[in-house]
Amino acid sequence: ANSLALACLVPPWGSILAHTEAHIVRDEATAPEFMTGGARLVALTGSAAKLAPDTLRAALAGHPESVHTTAASAVSISQCTELGAVYRPSEIAALAAVAHAHNLRVHMDGARFANAVQSLGCSPAEVTWRAGVDVLSFGATKNGALGAEAVVFFDPALAREFERRRKRAGHLLSKMRYVSAQLLALLEDGLWLQLAAHANRLAAQLASAARPWLMHPVEANELFLQLGPERIASLRAHPAGFKFYDWGAADSGQARLVVSWNQRESDVAALASALAGLGR
Amino acid sequence: ANSLALACLVPPWGSILAHTEAHIVRDEATAPEFMTGGARLVALTGSAAKLAPDTLRAALAGHPESVHTTAASAVSISQCTELGAVYRPSEIAALAAVAHAHNLRVHMDGARFANAVQSLGCSPAEVTWRAGVDVLSFGATKNGALGAEAVVFFDPALAREFERRRKRAGHLLSKMRYVSAQLLALLEDGLWLQLAAHANRLAAQLASAARPWLMHPVEANELFLQLGPERIASLRAHPAGFKFYDWGAADSGQARLVVSWNQRESDVAALASALAGLGR
Amino acid sequence: ANSLALACLVPPWGSILAHTEAHIVRDEATAPEFMTGGARLVALTGSAAKLAPDTLRAALAGHPESVHTTAASAVSISQCTELGAVYRPSEIAALAAVAHAHNLRVHMDGARFANAVQSLGCSPAEVTWRAGVDVLSFGATKNGALGAEAVVFFDPALAREFERRRKRAGHLLSKMRYVSAQLLALLEDGLWLQLAAHANRLAAQLASAARPWLMHPVEANELFLQLGPERIASLRAHPAGFKFYDWGAADSGQARLVVSWNQRESDVAALASALAGLGR
Amino acid sequence: ANSLALACLVPPWGSILAHTEAHIVRDEATAPEFMTGGARLVALTGSAAKLAPDTLRAALAGHPESVHTTAASAVSISQCTELGAVYRPSEIAALAAVAHAHNLRVHMDGARFANAVQSLGCSPAEVTWRAGVDVLSFGATKNGALGAEAVVFFDPALAREFERRRKRAGHLLSKMRYVSAQLLALLEDGLWLQLAAHANRLAAQLASAARPWLMHPVEANELFLQLGPERIASLRAHPAGFKFYDWGAADSGQARLVVSWNQRESDVAALASALAGLGR
Repeated sequence: ANSLALACLVPPWGSILAHTEAHIVRDEATAPEFMTGGARLVALTGSAAKLAPDTLRAALAGHPESVHTTAASAVSISQCTELGAVYRPSEIAALAAVAHAHNLRVHMDGARFANAVQSLGCSPAEVTWRAGVDVLSFGATKNGALGAEAVVFFDPALAREFERRRKRAGHLLSKMRYVSAQLLALLEDGLWLQLAAHANRLAAQLASAARPWLMHPVEANELFLQLGPERIASLRAHPAGFKFYDWGAADSGQARLVVSWNQRESDVAALASALAGLGR
Repeated sequence: ANSLALACLVPPWGSILAHTEAHIVRDEATAPEFMTGGARLVALTGSAAKLAPDTLRAALAGHPESVHTTAASAVSISQCTELGAVYRPSEIAALAAVAHAHNLRVHMDGARFANAVQSLGCSPAEVTWRAGVDVLSFGATKNGALGAEAVVFFDPALAREFERRRKRAGHLLSKMRYVSAQLLALLEDGLWLQLAAHANRLAAQLASAARPWLMHPVEANELFLQLGPERIASLRAHPAGFKFYDWGAADSGQARLVVSWNQRESDVAALASALAGLGR
Repeated sequence: ANSLALACLVPPWGSILAHTEAHIVRDEATAPEFMTGGARLVALTGSAAKLAPDTLRAALAGHPESVHTTAASAVSISQCTELGAVYRPSEIAALAAVAHAHNLRVHMDGARFANAVQSLGCSPAEVTWRAGVDVLSFGATKNGALGAEAVVFFDPALAREFERRRKRAGHLLSKMRYVSAQLLALLEDGLWLQLAAHANRLAAQLASAARPWLMHPVEANELFLQLGPERIASLRAHPAGFKFYDWGAADSGQARLVVSWNQRESDVAALASALAGLGR
Repeated sequence: ANSLALACLVPPWGSILAHTEAHIVRDEATAPEFMTGGARLVALTGSAAKLAPDTLRAALAGHPESVHTTAASAVSISQCTELGAVYRPSEIAALAAVAHAHNLRVHMDGARFANAVQSLGCSPAEVTWRAGVDVLSFGATKNGALGAEAVVFFDPALAREFERRRKRAGHLLSKMRYVSAQLLALLEDGLWLQLAAHANRLAAQLASAARPWLMHPVEANELFLQLGPERIASLRAHPAGFKFYDWGAADSGQARLVVSWNQRESDVAALASALAGLGR
């Protein structure tokens, strides 16, 4: 969804600015290059995987456009970010103002959009088109759906190409209506936000128990912990059988915890208890 | 599946030979060009959408390879064909012999592979690798599954790139195991062939009733009928509410009927009866 | 030049209609697919490598546009054609009318444009924009220049992308002004038409001598002869050391003769004499 | 030449590591992405636009390969670098050792290769294949030629694709032998090194005069000067009419001087004198 959306915003001679931790930079192979016909990804830095307006401004200043360079064409931000942070509407508006002033479009990777909206307690519009977002990849797979994502163009003119690009990339499925029906179930009665609220609430419980080791504020359903190798080993040896990802470089002693939309309360209680029992 | 499979067989400077009615030629937009990085589709003719060895031989003779031309790299055949025909194993072997003699790989679009295998009464191997097929797109969606297809490389060395290409094209889904599980259900107890047998059998019933108007032999679950505009109108006005596709040019008076894996017997009986009642 | 020009007219999900003998179909590898990002070439037929309006009309009728098919986006014609014919302005206008009525753009491969204009005795405008041509690849290399071609967009809006595409394809050369200067020399005093007149005139002399074997009318500087293997062998054994291309299938007995912008009169006289001496 | 060469080393799902100042990163639009079919450029830092082995090692360590990431496939270095530095053979060997240990190929952008070889006083082999370079883009255009570059594959197996890729990118020119002949003239009697020696020697003269403002050691024919806006203005107002590029951000007060293969001695003497006369 991200790469197809970006392909509608960025010509093959353009570039996409994104955080170095962004999913499109780290985890989608060269899909953005493929779908755009060979545009460039430019990786920027920022704390908690957020982009700041000054960072964007500096990147664009160092990127004078000519036929010899790439045409900076879009900025992509993740909501929530890949390090569990959530952009406030005002933060997005500030970024979008810089982007639009340079004729860049703003894309939002909303793989965890539900968790962000629920965390902010705002309307979806407030963190998207009202704040200057042009296109949203609205994720459902991380919130209970099976292979279902939507791309929302706030300027319908941008969507013209999307149907063509989706088809030729093999993402217009036969019998697709049965896949898409999942979105109705999520959206029509607010289920998407209920599931996100569940995951966010349990993540907050874990954050309380893991406070000494938090690498970033916990604003949604992800936690990044600097536990050290011994505590990691101790948790993994726990009789409850906890499983979680290592994070960072090998032997960094860091862990990434993600709370699921269908996580059992008892799982989280057990882990919180185990975390609380770890020596500082 | 077809385009990703072909991309593992054909370099960007190569060409794919296929029937002008092939799904990859008519119905997949420019996905083959996209996935291969810009290889060419060369369209050939043949009755019932089948390719004949002589046709292939002639195309390759008129296609002397040099750096100025494209490198003929693969032939793609559809089993069943898009006009409802089924290749015999010997027909495939004859085509594959020509292809391999010219260093082309053989791809089979098996969107309706189950119907073909059931129709032939042979083993899957007999119409694939034993007959010289290098890669099979094994379709499940037209046989009851939801968005599930497999690509089977009979030479594992050809599959090396596939994982990379699948990922960057966005076809390695998160939670994909839940999609793939459908293939287990289809394959483990022969369900795929039972469903195909059902559809083929009912199509044969329709073929009996529609004999005067058959444009092609009915060998699987598709019928192409030269009914004329009046009979088409009459069927559509029938109280049973029959719906079917027009075929060919506008006002050709042709219809395409496809029997589903879950078609009700009573539906087919009603249509067969209506067909039998049409004046010749 | 052809492929870059077409890339400005045709989206990656589009198709280009051209004669099966067109240089872009036969002799440019998969450059059109590459430069367009994976658009499709659709090959049509027609005598002397010309496209006729009815052929184009029929191809478009059989090409109903939907998201599943390719979007017919441009027709490309060659002036002169690859079989030595020249389109009259009225013929181009008739083709362009069909194309524009279907929202296709018209591209002209003018590798031998000078020879065509000189042959017609009209102005360049009469066979290009006034007749409906949108973009012309203006060739100079076959008329005395060294690696110099121009692309002329009659609608400047279509040219916007060209500079970007040219650069990223590596065709914006360092020191390019020294290459481009050749075009000034050709154009400023009519040298381009003088050279074409020379080649056309000598080709006409050869055509007189080769009348019994002409496969197509000789309208510019190319001749296609059905000589038979013996006469070909006899010419090649001639003490003057004639060299020329075989044409068509192996052992077709066909030959292709091209008269150069700097062909010596005596060369042509010798060949005409040798041709005249061949038994019919 | 760079992008076509890299396309033979890097699959569409791969990445190319290069310095952030590299010509392929800054000055070739998205040609590398285009020619490779959508591989990624990863920009690294280092003084004087050189890459250091540790930088490469760190980048590869942070780039664990999986189907979700890109496959680090090549490192590209510039000899001379874009900031006028020259790699010693031992420096290249150290980089190549890291690269090869990670299954990356080594590409050298030799746009100014002559200046580097002349500066080092070594053989071309010592700074290329003997040091681990797999492919060299051998530039002639910055050394007196007109649109002529060569790509030298030290492993001929890597060159197989090159001819195909060159053709479909439109870089196999008609009458190309007349372009290529320039390389004979440059190479057969050592002219390429004589021209480079001339430029390097004059650059050294300028470096002596500009010593207070040198931003980088001058090792070939380029100088980067931190002159400040007043001195820049003063030089541009000089009656000799000096012209040169600004460098860096707007108002950085930096200048880039490049000495040409055919620079007049008197030009350099005048500029050296003017530089010497600038107040410190």
